[in-house]
Amino acid sequence: MGLFITIEGGEGSGKSTLISKLYNHLALVEKREVVKTFEPGATPLGKSIRELLLNQEEAVITPKAELLLFLADRAHHIETVIRPALKEGKIVLCDRFTDSSRAYQGARGGIAGLEDLCSLASNHLTPDLTFFLDVDPVIGLSRLARKKDRLEKEKIDFHQKVRQEYLRLAEKEPDRFVILNAMHSPEELFEAALGKVKHELFRASAL
Amino acid sequence: MGLFITIEGGEGSGKSTLISKLYNHLALVEKREVVKTFEPGATPLGKSIRELLLNQEEAVITPKAELLLFLADRAHHIETVIRPALKEGKIVLCDRFTDSSRAYQGARGGIAGLEDLCSLASNHLTPDLTFFLDVDPVIGLSRLARKKDRLEKEKIDFHQKVRQEYLRLAEKEPDRFVILNAMHSPEELFEAALGKVKHELFRASAL
Repeated sequence: MGLFITIEGGEGSGKSTLISKLYNHLALVEKREVVKTFEPGATPLGKSIRELLLNQEEAVITPKAELLLFLADRAHHIETVIRPALKEGKIVLCDRFTDSSRAYQGARGGIAGLEDLCSLASNHLTPDLTFFLDVDPVIGLSRLARKKDRLEKEKIDFHQKVRQEYLRLAEKEPDRFVILNAMHSPEELFEAALGKVKHELFRASAL
Repeated sequence: MGLFITIEGGEGSGKSTLISKLYNHLALVEKREVVKTFEPGATPLGKSIRELLLNQEEAVITPKAELLLFLADRAHHIETVIRPALKEGKIVLCDRFTDSSRAYQGARGGIAGLEDLCSLASNHLTPDLTFFLDVDPVIGLSRLARKKDRLEKEKIDFHQKVRQEYLRLAEKEPDRFVILNAMHSPEELFEAALGKVKHELFRASAL
C-alpha cells in the first residue's frame, strides 16, 4: 500500500507551493511514484461540481447541500484517483481533503451529522499524514493576488473560525497531523515537511 | 404542520399524471394550500445538479458520487421548499424523494452506508404518506415516448431490481406506503390515492 498525504490550511497559507516542492523532490529527484492531486475538482465530474460550488454567484447554496457537493466530488476522486494510486503503492499528495470539509463546514456551523456524513462519504479513508499550514487569516488573505472566489470572499471572522476548527482537529489526532507555522519561508516549510515524509516512508517500509 | 406526500415508482409508472390529478383536485377544487414539486432539480441549484446527473454523456459517475449529488439536491430542496411549506401547514406533493435513492442506488448495489447517508442528508425527514406506483418495467419503459435520459437507458434487469427494492421498502413501512397497481386507469389510481389522502387529512385534523 502507498502513502496518503494531505495538505490543509486556510487561503494563502502556501499549500500549492508546499505540495509542488514536495512533488518535485519526491518524484523528480528521488524518482518515486507520486500522484499530485487536489480537491475539489480534480476529476471531470469534479470539475463540473467545482464550477457549481465556487462560481455560483446568484443562487444561494444551503450549508448541507454545499457539504454534500464537496462530498460527491471527494467520493468520485477517491474511487477514480486516490484509491487506485494507493493500491499501486504510490505516494498520493492531495491539496485539501476531508479535514477541509470538517474545518470549513464546521466553521459555518449548524450542519447536523457533519462528522458522520464526512466519514461515510469517504468510506472512512484517512490520510497517513496531514500537514496543516497555520497562518493568521488576515495575513493569508492579503497574500492572494488573484480574484477571490465565493468561499474566499467570506468575512474574516469566518476564516478565523476555520483556523480554530483546524487546530481543534489537529489536537484530536496528533499522530496524523503536523502543524507547520506558515510564516516560515517556503524553503523551511518544505524541509520540515520532507523530513516528516521521509520518516513516514521509513516507518512504512519497516512495517 | 402540513402533510408531506411523496409519489414513487419506476419509469413510465404514471407518477406525473397522478401528482397532477391530485394537485388539481386538492388545490383547485378543494382550494387547499398545496405545493407540487419534484426531485431532482426543483430548485435553481438543483437544476444544475440535475444537468450534471442526467446529461453526463461522457464522464463516468461513480455510484457513491451519484448518490451524494442526489442527496445535495434533496438537502437544498428540503431546506428551501419542503420544510418552509410544511411549516406553513401546506400539503406538499413531491414526485420522488428519499425512497428513490434507496431503490435506485440500492439496486445499483455496493454503496456502503447508503441508508445512513440518506437519513443524515435529509435530517431524517420522512413523508407522512408515500404512493408507490407498481408496474412491470417492461410495460413502464414501453410507455415512455420521449427521449430517454441516462438513468432510463439502464438495462431492464436494473429496473427489475429497482422494483424489488421499492417493494422491500413498502413491506418494511406498511403504515407509510400505499402500493398502487399502475395497470389501473389514471382515473382509478387518482380515486384510490385521493381517498387515502383524505383519510390522512382527517386523521391529521383529528389529532
